Amino acid sequence: MFHSPVVLALDLLGTFAFALNGALTAIRAARLDLVGVLVLGMVTALGGGMIRDILLNVPPATFGDLRYLGLAAGGALVAFVLSVELQRYARLINVFDAVGLSVFCVTGMSKALDAGMGSVQAVLLGVITAVGGGTLRDMAVMRVPTVLTSDFYAVPALVGAMLAATGVWLGLDGLVAALVPAAVAFTIRMLGVRYSLRMPRTREADPATGRRRRGGRDKKRDD
Amino acid sequence: MFHSPVVLALDLLGTFAFALNGALTAIRAARLDLVGVLVLGMVTALGGGMIRDILLNVPPATFGDLRYLGLAAGGALVAFVLSVELQRYARLINVFDAVGLSVFCVTGMSKALDAGMGSVQAVLLGVITAVGGGTLRDMAVMRVPTVLTSDFYAVPALVGAMLAATGVWLGLDGLVAALVPAAVAFTIRMLGVRYSLRMPRTREADPATGRRRRGGRDKKRDD
Amino acid sequence: MFHSPVVLALDLLGTFAFALNGALTAIRAARLDLVGVLVLGMVTALGGGMIRDILLNVPPATFGDLRYLGLAAGGALVAFVLSVELQRYARLINVFDAVGLSVFCVTGMSKALDAGMGSVQAVLLGVITAVGGGTLRDMAVMRVPTVLTSDFYAVPALVGAMLAATGVWLGLDGLVAALVPAAVAFTIRMLGVRYSLRMPRTREADPATGRRRRGGRDKKRDD
Repeated sequence: MFHSPVVLALDLLGTFAFALNGALTAIRAARLDLVGVLVLGMVTALGGGMIRDILLNVPPATFGDLRYLGLAAGGALVAFVLSVELQRYARLINVFDAVGLSVFCVTGMSKALDAGMGSVQAVLLGVITAVGGGTLRDMAVMRVPTVLTSDFYAVPALVGAMLAATGVWLGLDGLVAALVPAAVAFTIRMLGVRYSLRMPRTREADPATGRRRRGGRDKKRDD
Repeated sequence: MFHSPVVLALDLLGTFAFALNGALTAIRAARLDLVGVLVLGMVTALGGGMIRDILLNVPPATFGDLRYLGLAAGGALVAFVLSVELQRYARLINVFDAVGLSVFCVTGMSKALDAGMGSVQAVLLGVITAVGGGTLRDMAVMRVPTVLTSDFYAVPALVGAMLAATGVWLGLDGLVAALVPAAVAFTIRMLGVRYSLRMPRTREADPATGRRRRGGRDKKRDD
Repeated sequence: MFHSPVVLALDLLGTFAFALNGALTAIRAARLDLVGVLVLGMVTALGGGMIRDILLNVPPATFGDLRYLGLAAGGALVAFVLSVELQRYARLINVFDAVGLSVFCVTGMSKALDAGMGSVQAVLLGVITAVGGGTLRDMAVMRVPTVLTSDFYAVPALVGAMLAATGVWLGLDGLVAALVPAAVAFTIRMLGVRYSLRMPRTREADPATGRRRRGGRDKKRDD
């Protein structure tokens, strides 16, 4: 429902960011070679949009627009070539992930509305678009998906998609109406990574339930 | 091919049962937080039907009928809130799984017939609907899927789907014709869990091949 | 774009080979029972084509043509019954995998062209068809997919799909034009398995970057 050049620009940005993130994950976490880096980068970059389009029962946009394929492969190659430089800034891997997450929740929501979905479903599909690529990435390298272990992965995507849907409902469709929800989602995600924020656990698992807390134990996973 | 109110009622029952099961798995096996519990509950509840609809190349029913989304999220929340009480009855997690399995093999078969599939394909899609959610659940928490490790997971779904298809072929389409196959599937599954029934292994792996036996070794996985 | 009897024959060959491979993997690597062997054999055999058809947004061919289902189940049963004999020739499991890989990259590319895809997308879908079944197989038994860890898995599929696309572009559509790319892909894959060929790694991960080498460390995975 947003102007299509805005959605396209954000979508390509997210594709490139997720490709960098997936490729760096392949290099750092799984110590894969060139082909593995390329494949994991492309899966991370294109997976969320593919799952969205499959659930919308439309042909995946990836195959109709070569720029997606090109940016996904290009991002993975850039990460491969610059891996030493990029790893010097270890936090960048989380920043790339957060960029992809926060723009895909907005563009995914918008594309679901375009396909005729209701608001609730469009918000959910925005979240699925945002977390889908990272979930495939984690499962491919045998990690429990971040969306399950880190509370501040689905939550920022949900907030971003809901804000974007509210904007559409208010009749806003410009660049700012798409960028503000993405910026809010990005900020929440990065605060979650920085402070390892947690949602309440069940009583048995965590006696201090009902209060958000800065966890120490889980820091290694998010950082 | 069954009356649609019957299919809808069973489908919603299965969705709720699988949501409880997926959420309890998230709490017990993977010690996840609220978001992880919600996500895993919804994936378990909605995954089988989504895979079926994707393979039928129709838009997933989940997005066309908000009751599915509501029951999936509601079931996961109920399990989260009542987790201490529900865990006191440890077997309930298997009962919920068996309920979802046994109603989804019937409704999935019926929906595949409605979509124009032949009998063989409809039975197979019934099995896929029944085991799909649990398979995504297991893979998400890095467990080998139950459908591979427990013989009495695919088999009861297959029996239920075949009985339901036989009923349709005989011209039966009422509540009883849908409930009997589901009850048979449920009974077989629960007997399999209780007695850890096994299908034959290859000669090398198990010298006592060709005979079903009560295994001790595999009990921990099914119980 | 190839003559359809050629594509059908190769497709059925690949289905049978992947069913044998998946079933043997279930027996050897995961020590599964009859049901697990059947399920993993069918997933390996049918998974690549299903992913391709889902991405093409067409109904999966598997459900429109019972020969695919029959060959997949039959291949898995043959492997189960003959498992002792087949395991005496341990390399066979890689040969079956290479056969499936090399024919599916050609038939998948051809079917994508038939569905109206451009050349680049058709080549990519050929690769996805070829590696898809094995990737689902590996993920189901909790192994990092071969396509990520072994460089000479995606590469032979890519070469085969590109050669086949070149043949179509030259106006060739006969049996030879389909068999030659498949034979080249098969040969590259088997050389990769035999000599554990590797693509370059990043500088940090492998100081000897830029040179292919016969690796010792990775041999256990490919062999």
